[in-house]
Amino acid sequence: MSYRIGLDISGGDFAPDEIFKGALLAKKELEDKIVLIGVKEEIQQQIKKYNLDKNTFEIIEAPEKISMGESPAVAVRKKKGSSLTIGSKLLKEKKIDAFVSCGNTGACVCAATLNVGLIEGIERPGIALKVPTKRGVSLLIDVGANIDPKPIHLFQYGIMASVYYRLVLNKKNPTVGLLNIGEEETKGPDYVRSVHKLFSASPIDFIGNIEAKDIFSGVCDCIVCDGYAGNVALKVAEGVAETMGKFLLNEIKKDWLGKLGLLLILNSIKRFKRLIDYSEYGGAPLLGVDGIVIIGHGRSNALAVKNAIRVATKEVAYNLNTEIKNSIDSVCQDKKIKELLFE
Amino acid sequence: MSYRIGLDISGGDFAPDEIFKGALLAKKELEDKIVLIGVKEEIQQQIKKYNLDKNTFEIIEAPEKISMGESPAVAVRKKKGSSLTIGSKLLKEKKIDAFVSCGNTGACVCAATLNVGLIEGIERPGIALKVPTKRGVSLLIDVGANIDPKPIHLFQYGIMASVYYRLVLNKKNPTVGLLNIGEEETKGPDYVRSVHKLFSASPIDFIGNIEAKDIFSGVCDCIVCDGYAGNVALKVAEGVAETMGKFLLNEIKKDWLGKLGLLLILNSIKRFKRLIDYSEYGGAPLLGVDGIVIIGHGRSNALAVKNAIRVATKEVAYNLNTEIKNSIDSVCQDKKIKELLFE
Repeated sequence: MSYRIGLDISGGDFAPDEIFKGALLAKKELEDKIVLIGVKEEIQQQIKKYNLDKNTFEIIEAPEKISMGESPAVAVRKKKGSSLTIGSKLLKEKKIDAFVSCGNTGACVCAATLNVGLIEGIERPGIALKVPTKRGVSLLIDVGANIDPKPIHLFQYGIMASVYYRLVLNKKNPTVGLLNIGEEETKGPDYVRSVHKLFSASPIDFIGNIEAKDIFSGVCDCIVCDGYAGNVALKVAEGVAETMGKFLLNEIKKDWLGKLGLLLILNSIKRFKRLIDYSEYGGAPLLGVDGIVIIGHGRSNALAVKNAIRVATKEVAYNLNTEIKNSIDSVCQDKKIKELLFE
Repeated sequence: MSYRIGLDISGGDFAPDEIFKGALLAKKELEDKIVLIGVKEEIQQQIKKYNLDKNTFEIIEAPEKISMGESPAVAVRKKKGSSLTIGSKLLKEKKIDAFVSCGNTGACVCAATLNVGLIEGIERPGIALKVPTKRGVSLLIDVGANIDPKPIHLFQYGIMASVYYRLVLNKKNPTVGLLNIGEEETKGPDYVRSVHKLFSASPIDFIGNIEAKDIFSGVCDCIVCDGYAGNVALKVAEGVAETMGKFLLNEIKKDWLGKLGLLLILNSIKRFKRLIDYSEYGGAPLLGVDGIVIIGHGRSNALAVKNAIRVATKEVAYNLNTEIKNSIDSVCQDKKIKELLFE
């Protein structure tokens, strides 16, 4: 089956060029229909640039832009003509099956929550990020949608991530771990300890607390944390990877043996870079919203955009949100869970 | 001048061997007197092993041990004969000038707070970690002492770190940044935004919010955050460094060119490892306690122990805590700050 995927052409550090290029790549690879949402004139310029037929993509005019630095709530409230607002409204009206944006993350969360609404029973949406680990891919949720977390939010993140992993990443009984500052269940802030109790009482395959050093070691399939901690984890990982790379390169270039060695390992470095390159992983699903929304990294290139579109079609095909709703209903109806939630 | 430094011989993954070896290294390098605190028999075995005179070190018997996994509060309350309890009491009684431990971090914070007490005016102690950056060393505070932070705690962390950086790391006007999920002052959880206001109103050289990706880029000298986020940052950095190293090595070993290249860059890798090796940085001061306490990494080797002792003597020599008290007094007496604190 083919779907209609809305793509925010105005969002992202390299918009509109890389986003448009990504749409072209996706068009070649997928049967789905890509709907470009953004400033019409800019889209037409791109079409001209590639000498394409003007009907190559369906275009929806969204004259306003929300920049990366703008305050999400204010921008979404004021700019009714932004690609984020118009895209999320199209999703609500089911005129598109999924919406992909590499723009202002906070504004995307805000527009989706406001205009599309949440899945019945879900309290807060969470951004789930695929991270490369020693044993494959883990899903880290939340990495920045929710900085005022309550136990039920984190509990629901675990359930949603587990459904996502099972369907989209195709694993029967995905395991869930809780990010904490120690492995013992008595460790950490109060709200994290409450989440530990909830998971322990649920049918989720819960492995307990995990420490941040294990996020990238693949000890479990889904890792649950609040958006502040998740954002710190993600940004530290980016920063360390970059800094380490520079440190190492500096040291290697200090002697001629090193320089020669560097030449010999260039291919290995290229393979390594591809392994840790976020653009391979297809953006981060915003779970909990009553429609498929994928948030791409601000620095997304064409490949990242194409992969985000590919993942969006998968989520639609697997009826992700229906499955999430069923899981949430069944888990949260449990008497013991209800008691814990009202403690 | 020479000082008396108490060393917990029972704490750390490689205790007592590496801790004792570290004491020996320190003895060779420093004029200060090292007081070993731990199980007498174990210390005497070490002395025998190295064929040393039995008066090489002063020994204080501490028959009980607190393991790395024990619950800090419970362990400190129950084990009155632990090296942590006895060491912190000796510090309180001024029988030693500083106390160094590589044991259970939480228990060390707990024992020091309980037995030594806090500097007058300080509300919570914080662990300050030296992190290598592109431009030298930054001080990240707190990395795990306080997981229930209030604005005043973080504000005081910034003041203490600033004094530490000025005295011990020898820089006139150290800059302070606040860890947040975005650079704009409107971003982040409520308590973090309150801290932003406090710093902005204070004489601290405050550069504003910084994102976690910049922890290792050296944008400021001191970085303030809550203990949960700081711990996540630190552990993620460790995890990423380790995982990246393994990924890269795997890729390099996949072809013979890579293997040859690896041989050629081995020296560079060694230099690089030394650059990012925590053992070079001399442990993490527990700031806010009314006595000099240094917490070493659990995996500390002899070199790390020696460096922690060296840093401890520096802190004593510079009268760190008197300076911290003076700074806190002068900043917190300010009318505007007082108003903000009572908001």
